[in-house]
Amino acid sequence: MRERIIDLTYTMYGGMPVFPGDPPVSMEFCHTIDSAGFNVTQLTMPTHAGTHLDAPLHFLQDGKPVDALDLSACAGEAHLLDFTHRGNSLDEMTVEDFLRYDAVIRPGARLVVRTGWDRVFPSPAFFTEMPGISVDAARFLAERRIALIGLDMPSVHAKEYQVVHEILLGAGIVIVEWLTNLAAIETSPFYFVALPLKLQGRDGSPVRAVAIERA
Amino acid sequence: MRERIIDLTYTMYGGMPVFPGDPPVSMEFCHTIDSAGFNVTQLTMPTHAGTHLDAPLHFLQDGKPVDALDLSACAGEAHLLDFTHRGNSLDEMTVEDFLRYDAVIRPGARLVVRTGWDRVFPSPAFFTEMPGISVDAARFLAERRIALIGLDMPSVHAKEYQVVHEILLGAGIVIVEWLTNLAAIETSPFYFVALPLKLQGRDGSPVRAVAIERA
Repeated sequence: MRERIIDLTYTMYGGMPVFPGDPPVSMEFCHTIDSAGFNVTQLTMPTHAGTHLDAPLHFLQDGKPVDALDLSACAGEAHLLDFTHRGNSLDEMTVEDFLRYDAVIRPGARLVVRTGWDRVFPSPAFFTEMPGISVDAARFLAERRIALIGLDMPSVHAKEYQVVHEILLGAGIVIVEWLTNLAAIETSPFYFVALPLKLQGRDGSPVRAVAIERA
Repeated sequence: MRERIIDLTYTMYGGMPVFPGDPPVSMEFCHTIDSAGFNVTQLTMPTHAGTHLDAPLHFLQDGKPVDALDLSACAGEAHLLDFTHRGNSLDEMTVEDFLRYDAVIRPGARLVVRTGWDRVFPSPAFFTEMPGISVDAARFLAERRIALIGLDMPSVHAKEYQVVHEILLGAGIVIVEWLTNLAAIETSPFYFVALPLKLQGRDGSPVRAVAIERA
């Protein structure tokens, strides 16, 4: 089987932009070929820097941590939703927008939403003016019991992020944020992979997110 | 298509055992629901703690960093090699052992080796007495131009790790180390995924490694 892997992940680097108030990303060698015969890096990063995944514990005190997620949500067939008409500052994706894809928004579905907002990175507006999922649309997705939503914004909403997270995570929906390069996906459905690190009792994880197209 | 995802990854936790001389793993909340409305963790970890992947830069000064790896090595059909007869302290896997799987050790192959050594974790002997790939066997795998080798030991050899790494990484072979739960894989070949974080200019990455069996 021929496969083409499309990388949907931001490069992570020391000092990269993170959410206002988050501690910095740092990557420094703790061993080097000169000092030890090999290179090893000590990584420091917040769980929500760069392309990453939210577990329910991110917003829900009794929510599942990332090491307890069902991995079947995080790898499998996904549908690409073209919402580039909602790719401007503080736009909202509505129930009507999602209803254009009514047929694929089913229990267990994985949805990857393309707004084009990744073009704004690394501007500060990337965080403060991102388009968002409306509160009503979040309720709609929760009722439809989808398994995963992937976004090319760093979070779910610039202002209503608390309630939108609570609705989605409360419904057990895995949220993958800060995706990029979604324009490179040529077929839908496609095979999507965004597996979290197995971080005991934690709220989220950086991921390497990819689309795998099979021919 | 029905899929079964088998987790091949160690749980990561603060203070988990790491290679002697490596800095510790730490995971502490930097925001909490009480303080900020949401939980965020600041992660600190060496690139070679827990289930992880080595890039050529780990041992080769001019080697590729992890963000430059061809991801097609890190996701795709893999073969399980049962080397449980080499699962004791300081055992060596030889060319003869690998020749039992001659037919699948081809250019571009992904090989996952089961010794059973993961049973020794978290004892200090897990690091100091692990079985290893012999120097001759490493040369054999390099000549065969395989793409990836996965191991249930934390490294490639307890003593000859320098030369074995240099041979494998010098041949462009991706090394996935510190796998576990390989006994749960019921079919071979199987679909293997161990995608590195996209860490700019770094020597390796923690991964979530899984087998995906399709029925």
